[in-house]
Amino acid sequence: MTNSLPDKKVIEDAYERVKPIVKRTPVFTNSTFNEMFGVEAYFKCENLQKVGAFKFRGASNTVMQLSDEQAMNGVVTHSSGNHAAALSFAAKSRGIPAYIVMPETAPRVKVESVKSYGGKITFCKPTLESRVTTANRIIEETGGILIHPFDDYRIIAGAATASMEFFEEVGSLDYLLAPIGGGGLICGSALSAHYFKTGTKVVAAEPKNADDAYLSLQKGEIVSINDPDTIADGLRTMLSEKTFDIVQRFVDKIVTVTEEEIIEAMRFIWERMKLIIEPSSAVPVAAVMFRKANFTGRVGIILSGGNVDLTALPFN
Amino acid sequence: MTNSLPDKKVIEDAYERVKPIVKRTPVFTNSTFNEMFGVEAYFKCENLQKVGAFKFRGASNTVMQLSDEQAMNGVVTHSSGNHAAALSFAAKSRGIPAYIVMPETAPRVKVESVKSYGGKITFCKPTLESRVTTANRIIEETGGILIHPFDDYRIIAGAATASMEFFEEVGSLDYLLAPIGGGGLICGSALSAHYFKTGTKVVAAEPKNADDAYLSLQKGEIVSINDPDTIADGLRTMLSEKTFDIVQRFVDKIVTVTEEEIIEAMRFIWERMKLIIEPSSAVPVAAVMFRKANFTGRVGIILSGGNVDLTALPFN
Repeated sequence: MTNSLPDKKVIEDAYERVKPIVKRTPVFTNSTFNEMFGVEAYFKCENLQKVGAFKFRGASNTVMQLSDEQAMNGVVTHSSGNHAAALSFAAKSRGIPAYIVMPETAPRVKVESVKSYGGKITFCKPTLESRVTTANRIIEETGGILIHPFDDYRIIAGAATASMEFFEEVGSLDYLLAPIGGGGLICGSALSAHYFKTGTKVVAAEPKNADDAYLSLQKGEIVSINDPDTIADGLRTMLSEKTFDIVQRFVDKIVTVTEEEIIEAMRFIWERMKLIIEPSSAVPVAAVMFRKANFTGRVGIILSGGNVDLTALPFN
Repeated sequence: MTNSLPDKKVIEDAYERVKPIVKRTPVFTNSTFNEMFGVEAYFKCENLQKVGAFKFRGASNTVMQLSDEQAMNGVVTHSSGNHAAALSFAAKSRGIPAYIVMPETAPRVKVESVKSYGGKITFCKPTLESRVTTANRIIEETGGILIHPFDDYRIIAGAATASMEFFEEVGSLDYLLAPIGGGGLICGSALSAHYFKTGTKVVAAEPKNADDAYLSLQKGEIVSINDPDTIADGLRTMLSEKTFDIVQRFVDKIVTVTEEEIIEAMRFIWERMKLIIEPSSAVPVAAVMFRKANFTGRVGIILSGGNVDLTALPFN
């Protein structure tokens, strides 16, 4: 594992490395959105990425860099879902096993997805402790190598490739928004803006009910929230040392949105843009719709994923 | 109104006419779909068209061709939804009013959509008789001109522009599938295949529970089904003289699918491709998934629309 902050070259290399593997996702616009909210918005559709989430970028970038010896016994992770599917598919592409520890409460669609990509699932209790001990046991039994969902510069550099494509497609942006959970996507976005599009303000959007990153930035140390109650299931995680460091240095602002705002934003994208996004993806959309900062001009939003349990939707 | 079958030139002209107005919708592929169903499928995303349906093409092509005198008092239609939204938006673009007669049972999302595009709605009873008498009253009161949702060669030529784009994007296809309701889309598709891609087999897909087109073809005359019980609300209409004639001459086959098959196909597109399609769009997808004909090679499917009431979904 590389242990220093990814520089310009590392991100460019990641971009070249994953190019043949990941899907170049489309960027959509919506004139109704622009009229209603007074911006020129661009939506980068990582919900249409392989495995339905940007996570495939980081997983691919990491699995492709493992030496044959490191890769030999497979990869292991504990994840609430999208990283698990992404790692399974990346491992499958390299022909190695992926051992996935998942909380028994994970949405059915995410479990099915991991299975369909060939991941070998071990269920655990929905606590961080149970996830860690179960993962450790699997590592001992299989000799597999742990791939953390975000506390890994290879994962972050992989996530950065989404905004590399985004910039290539739309040119410069006044604002670039992404959700913040563990911080992989926003850190990758912030680094690529820093190196390649200096003028871009990078804004992280977080559920008010899981505002650990917001509080961490205020307090100057990593804050955790026990069992945060948000519909944005991908954003319940706390920051890690690596991501907190990057957020402090390269993210301009963290804004928070309510659960109602998340659902309304999700509904807008579903109804008006006909795109299935998961609640986590709706968080930065809500930030623009409800003007959590003075957004103007060209605003890029990364729609991070589209894995939703269709039998448990929040619309009424 | 032109009263002869659209020839090659009429369709080319329609294509040039609507090009600056309609959205050139993307074509997506899905490797899981191809692996599971043994075809090389291309999905033309008219659910991402303006107003969320291919109907905007025919409405634009028609409204743009009205003389100033014809257009002066606005346009009128009775429609279950997508044509209504499409006509409203096309009329708005030309700066004329659109008077829309809708059954009081129309899905909320379609009513909201018509309103948001500036259509003036009059509700009627959900019977053909009530729709016709109400529309006639509105025409008398306003002097507006009736634009039929599909029994109009301008509408059919407009619908043909979807497959024109499709062919331009993917080249030749072995099969081209579209749903059949009133027949506008499948007739447009069949004509453009006939003129521009002769080798393409054109297959219409219909719900078994609303198989009036299938029966019409067998019987050699237009059959109607009273109040057909299908989730595919866009396909409850019967053929018209103009569309029946084209179907008989240019459509290779009509296949039918069950309600369960429609829902499963809809679920696949939602879950795996993250695209919101309405049940009508899932009908040709189901035809391929459940092998209602010997589909092989390059199979093009037109996803006709994405207007769904999110509070009344068929998933469980």
